[in-house]
Amino acid sequence: MTLKLYVDRMSHPCREVIIFCKLNGIDFEEVHIDLSKRQQRSPEYREINPIRKIPAIMDGRFKLSESHAILRYLACAFPRIADHWYPTDLYKRAKVESVLDWQRTTFPSGSGSYVFHSVLGPAVGIPLNTKAAARTEKNLIASLALIESVWLQKKGRFLLGSDQPSIADLSLACEIMALERV
Amino acid sequence: MTLKLYVDRMSHPCREVIIFCKLNGIDFEEVHIDLSKRQQRSPEYREINPIRKIPAIMDGRFKLSESHAILRYLACAFPRIADHWYPTDLYKRAKVESVLDWQRTTFPSGSGSYVFHSVLGPAVGIPLNTKAAARTEKNLIASLALIESVWLQKKGRFLLGSDQPSIADLSLACEIMALERV
Repeated sequence: MTLKLYVDRMSHPCREVIIFCKLNGIDFEEVHIDLSKRQQRSPEYREINPIRKIPAIMDGRFKLSESHAILRYLACAFPRIADHWYPTDLYKRAKVESVLDWQRTTFPSGSGSYVFHSVLGPAVGIPLNTKAAARTEKNLIASLALIESVWLQKKGRFLLGSDQPSIADLSLACEIMALERV
Repeated sequence: MTLKLYVDRMSHPCREVIIFCKLNGIDFEEVHIDLSKRQQRSPEYREINPIRKIPAIMDGRFKLSESHAILRYLACAFPRIADHWYPTDLYKRAKVESVLDWQRTTFPSGSGSYVFHSVLGPAVGIPLNTKAAARTEKNLIASLALIESVWLQKKGRFLLGSDQPSIADLSLACEIMALERV
């Protein structure tokens, strides 16, 4: 049974999941949940994800939501996923988890709010807010500086000094690239 | 070499890590990083965690930050940690990850901001903000309702229908109990 992805490409967490599948040759069926029509709040989608957020997946009868949880699951559940995406080594994996969690605890206070208040708000019926955008820009600049000075400070081309990307690279890259819309 | 925890018990992510160690018989040395004195921004602490947040740990020479990443690491790195804390089963673990991530993507937009604007702000030099507290209270109530209707809706006493707690129970409980200060 083909993996189903419930996604809207307007959302960067959805793009993370789509890109991971494409890069790793995982077949999937893309089910479009249109955020601009608030389809994530429809009764039909509630059967897939009662939390009413995207992305979500259905793999056979197994349903899962939250993009980072989905990336971890896909990296472990599907065969022949290269180890660098989600290292089995305890210490390497812990560091990848640290970046993933930092992205959630710290980065959105700049990035997510900035994009929302600067560009995306009207798509879901919320007016632009230049004052809020200015306030969050400061947090965003501080977070981007930390990526440069801490997470990327080692030799490799990717986060944590690696020569190949992990799911933390993919997720953070998708979030940062969302800023190109601003 | 004893595990070092860099914490301030005023912070609920720090309390998660301390409680996990105590419940699981992990010996540790508690190093107090006083948030009210902004010690997390000191040059000495920067050597431990250049991101300048707490909690962080040092296990031998291995340093790690972000409470969820620390909980995952401790559950895997130390012997005789019961499986229910961080299940090895792919599907059970994925569901625990989903709650942990939901806590980070959704819950703080209510809980963290609410506590900060209602009580904790002055401890770090930021005035109380009743208007912001009222705004975030609405998100908080919606998130608490989702915990009741989705994450706790199955038979067991704990999240996801389990009879025993996972690190997601511990983390979410610590965050919710922080509301008792309000």
